[in-house]
Amino acid sequence: MKALRNTWYVAALAKELDAQAFLSRKLLDVSVLMYRKADGTPVAMQDRCPHRFAPLSLGKRVGDEVQCLYHGLRFDSNGACTHSPHGDGQVPARACVRSFSLVERYGFLWIWMGDANRADAKLIPHYPLLDNPLPTAVAHGYMHMPANYELIVDNVMDLSHVDHVHGPLLNTAGHLSPQKPPVTEDSNSVLVRWEWQQHPPMGLFAPLLPDPAGEAEQFVQVQWTAPSNMFLTVGAVQGSRDYERGLISWDFHLVTPESETSTHYFFGSLRNFMVDNGAFNDAKLENMIHTFKTEDEPLIAAQQAEMGTTDFWSLKPALLSCDTASVKARRRLQKLIDEENASPQNAARAAMRATA
Amino acid sequence: MKALRNTWYVAALAKELDAQAFLSRKLLDVSVLMYRKADGTPVAMQDRCPHRFAPLSLGKRVGDEVQCLYHGLRFDSNGACTHSPHGDGQVPARACVRSFSLVERYGFLWIWMGDANRADAKLIPHYPLLDNPLPTAVAHGYMHMPANYELIVDNVMDLSHVDHVHGPLLNTAGHLSPQKPPVTEDSNSVLVRWEWQQHPPMGLFAPLLPDPAGEAEQFVQVQWTAPSNMFLTVGAVQGSRDYERGLISWDFHLVTPESETSTHYFFGSLRNFMVDNGAFNDAKLENMIHTFKTEDEPLIAAQQAEMGTTDFWSLKPALLSCDTASVKARRRLQKLIDEENASPQNAARAAMRATA
Amino acid sequence: MKALRNTWYVAALAKELDAQAFLSRKLLDVSVLMYRKADGTPVAMQDRCPHRFAPLSLGKRVGDEVQCLYHGLRFDSNGACTHSPHGDGQVPARACVRSFSLVERYGFLWIWMGDANRADAKLIPHYPLLDNPLPTAVAHGYMHMPANYELIVDNVMDLSHVDHVHGPLLNTAGHLSPQKPPVTEDSNSVLVRWEWQQHPPMGLFAPLLPDPAGEAEQFVQVQWTAPSNMFLTVGAVQGSRDYERGLISWDFHLVTPESETSTHYFFGSLRNFMVDNGAFNDAKLENMIHTFKTEDEPLIAAQQAEMGTTDFWSLKPALLSCDTASVKARRRLQKLIDEENASPQNAARAAMRATA
Repeated sequence: MKALRNTWYVAALAKELDAQAFLSRKLLDVSVLMYRKADGTPVAMQDRCPHRFAPLSLGKRVGDEVQCLYHGLRFDSNGACTHSPHGDGQVPARACVRSFSLVERYGFLWIWMGDANRADAKLIPHYPLLDNPLPTAVAHGYMHMPANYELIVDNVMDLSHVDHVHGPLLNTAGHLSPQKPPVTEDSNSVLVRWEWQQHPPMGLFAPLLPDPAGEAEQFVQVQWTAPSNMFLTVGAVQGSRDYERGLISWDFHLVTPESETSTHYFFGSLRNFMVDNGAFNDAKLENMIHTFKTEDEPLIAAQQAEMGTTDFWSLKPALLSCDTASVKARRRLQKLIDEENASPQNAARAAMRATA
Repeated sequence: MKALRNTWYVAALAKELDAQAFLSRKLLDVSVLMYRKADGTPVAMQDRCPHRFAPLSLGKRVGDEVQCLYHGLRFDSNGACTHSPHGDGQVPARACVRSFSLVERYGFLWIWMGDANRADAKLIPHYPLLDNPLPTAVAHGYMHMPANYELIVDNVMDLSHVDHVHGPLLNTAGHLSPQKPPVTEDSNSVLVRWEWQQHPPMGLFAPLLPDPAGEAEQFVQVQWTAPSNMFLTVGAVQGSRDYERGLISWDFHLVTPESETSTHYFFGSLRNFMVDNGAFNDAKLENMIHTFKTEDEPLIAAQQAEMGTTDFWSLKPALLSCDTASVKARRRLQKLIDEENASPQNAARAAMRATA
Repeated sequence: MKALRNTWYVAALAKELDAQAFLSRKLLDVSVLMYRKADGTPVAMQDRCPHRFAPLSLGKRVGDEVQCLYHGLRFDSNGACTHSPHGDGQVPARACVRSFSLVERYGFLWIWMGDANRADAKLIPHYPLLDNPLPTAVAHGYMHMPANYELIVDNVMDLSHVDHVHGPLLNTAGHLSPQKPPVTEDSNSVLVRWEWQQHPPMGLFAPLLPDPAGEAEQFVQVQWTAPSNMFLTVGAVQGSRDYERGLISWDFHLVTPESETSTHYFFGSLRNFMVDNGAFNDAKLENMIHTFKTEDEPLIAAQQAEMGTTDFWSLKPALLSCDTASVKARRRLQKLIDEENASPQNAARAAMRATA
């Protein structure tokens, strides 16, 4: 499948990986086994025994190691075979499992599916806002989406769709579409920002603003970084344009391809209001997931079904002003993938993978 | 998929398209959106927004226009974009939807999926019998069939199968198979006709004949016209061979490919008896559908499953005398498709379609 | 699909084919119709009418012949068309069904899917043990398995997996894996044998041994013959190594490809103990099937899902000492398939099949 490999993807929410159980998830068409060592360190390796290709996740934990159900080969968390019960116990060189760097940060587990030598935790996106928040002020969520991950990036990078798709909670009342929102880029990111007045304010904020039925200054900005991480800042204030004095919600939408036509959608959400209200925190997460599942997903799944696996550009889309940011993100990602594929080193690796 | 494109197909029953709702149906592997304008005129266009390829049928009516759910683009019934809520409202040239001629006639909606410039309503088959009948004397029906449309044409063009497949309602008691029914052709059609004596008569007619247990003169003829329209006349009379004095049923079997392995099966049915009995009319339609669903469909679906998408001729069928009409229909259709594909104009269009 | 064709496969248990009913089963991707003639002789032919490719199994018996439901063509048990109700009853040369030799032996029906001229019943594996046993001493079973047949051969040829996969009934308590079991070959077979002491004995034998909680001498050997027939002998004795005085179970595991990714798994089971106890016989078969369905199948199905249709060797398996016998079986089968494909005669036939 078409995807950047030398990059960090979210593989799971930190809370999805409990102390004991295995978690098996397909990422970029590869079956990945994740678990925590006794000291809590999360680890990841291919969920495939190198002997007969049974999923290791059917096996069991032996301390910090994994024992294959089928013939009892045991692997440490680096994928090295530490024990074979067979014959004289000799372990052939091939009996090693591909392991992946897996780093816990910001409530997510980040995985590097590319060249292991290039896995550098400094390349994980910097989301300091997610560090050390009050537990009642931050929520992490996960959804499975039956669509290619770039369709989800398109969705988030072009929030003009909110005018048309979303109900009262996220209603923007048609204020986004008429804008040509400024799009700014640096070496690493694409950023798009909308500002507008709305009366009454968006349902997410209205009940918490001084005048729930009055006019509010609102804004939303989305910062994309490769391959498919989006950081949203959404705000509303009344009586001034000093957004810092208003309500702000920060939302991280981090999507990871499962296959050509399905995606793992992770998010993290914070805010500067009602931060010590755990019930509000839970309800906000639940409402967000409900909104995506009922308003975005049917549309994106239908779009996926209509497009199939035909290349997006080959369908010659009619581009509108609202597409600027999503198209820039698509093109930057494509450029990175092309560079990755063109690198002689990676071409050699790809050839090895193909015969591995 | 293999199909003639420059021709009229039935896309829906007229009654399937109500005053307000959208109807979305896949025809020749293309998603088609149909609806009626306020004045009742039926219209059809590709069910795919040219912007991001969401199905337009998820959107809404705005007067006689269609508004895409995803980003609010609006299209008139010719597929022209009449409104974009984005930026300065400019509409790019590509923002148009492919529309299709859709003509209401004989209780059906006829669609032209080929070169729009060649869509000529005069080419719709002439079925004057279906004009202005008593409402209680005509019935229109629809079935979805999990098989290639040519297998259904084969079925109807070779009614010798009735001897073997069908129960009391359509029982022909072995009288058709021994015949070598005359097959006549003109530039436009293939016609096959069987005549025989049957004792007692076919269940469809027996209760309405003077002597339900006696002998009847019966006949059935099927006229095929390209691509896959079949007009059946079925009759029974007692005491003479003057069929005009007997009972006659006229049945139109009109099939439209959905995909390589599935078909929309439409029919219209009239008769010269009990014409003002609406309950009889309803029961006859229901019995007809029941017969197809329980007697023909399991067989044709199994035939499709056994053949897969292998070309019929490559399987080297053993041909019998009963196959004459169905083989002529297959060959004439193939010739039309070959001619269509060979036309330089269409070859160019096909190339454009492939990259569109 | 990759499979040897000029060989005998089990197509069904003899008891699956009753006196009247058709049995239709896909073997090597070919739909096969089986039934018994009035004298009990089992016969097999392709389950596809040569006229319009409807499955003959939808039709009916007419004496020892088969009549197609669709148009009434009738075929004798050699696949020759004996009657056409059409026209003058002429039967075209192509109107014949491919028939297969089907031989009833040892409670199984053996089919030859290759070159009919080479079907020689002498090539059926010799399993005299299965001749004339007490009805209460022999059991025959069938399971459908969602995996390629070679994965099942691997499973049975490497019984070290029993140490890891199986519960109390077949528990070997880790005694098999440490062995490098001797593997012997002759022109026709691969044989592997394990011997060990176990305390308490395997659950299958323990309750029937003099000292159910004591130590037993145990052994198991598996003889593979092409293409995928495995004959197991399993035994336990106490107080000596004279296995002939102990308990012995003989188990025939005979697997036939259905498709690239699914298999018909047949078995026959005998023993030298409690031979006149029919209830024990039934329970042993039921336990065996239960063990396979709950302990082996989930593993092998997951292995299949993880491998997909990728060639086993291209995945570069890490081979262990326990793999010797299964790898020898795989290589011998591959050699036979390569020889079959390389034969000019068969290459011609394959080409004919491809266009048939």
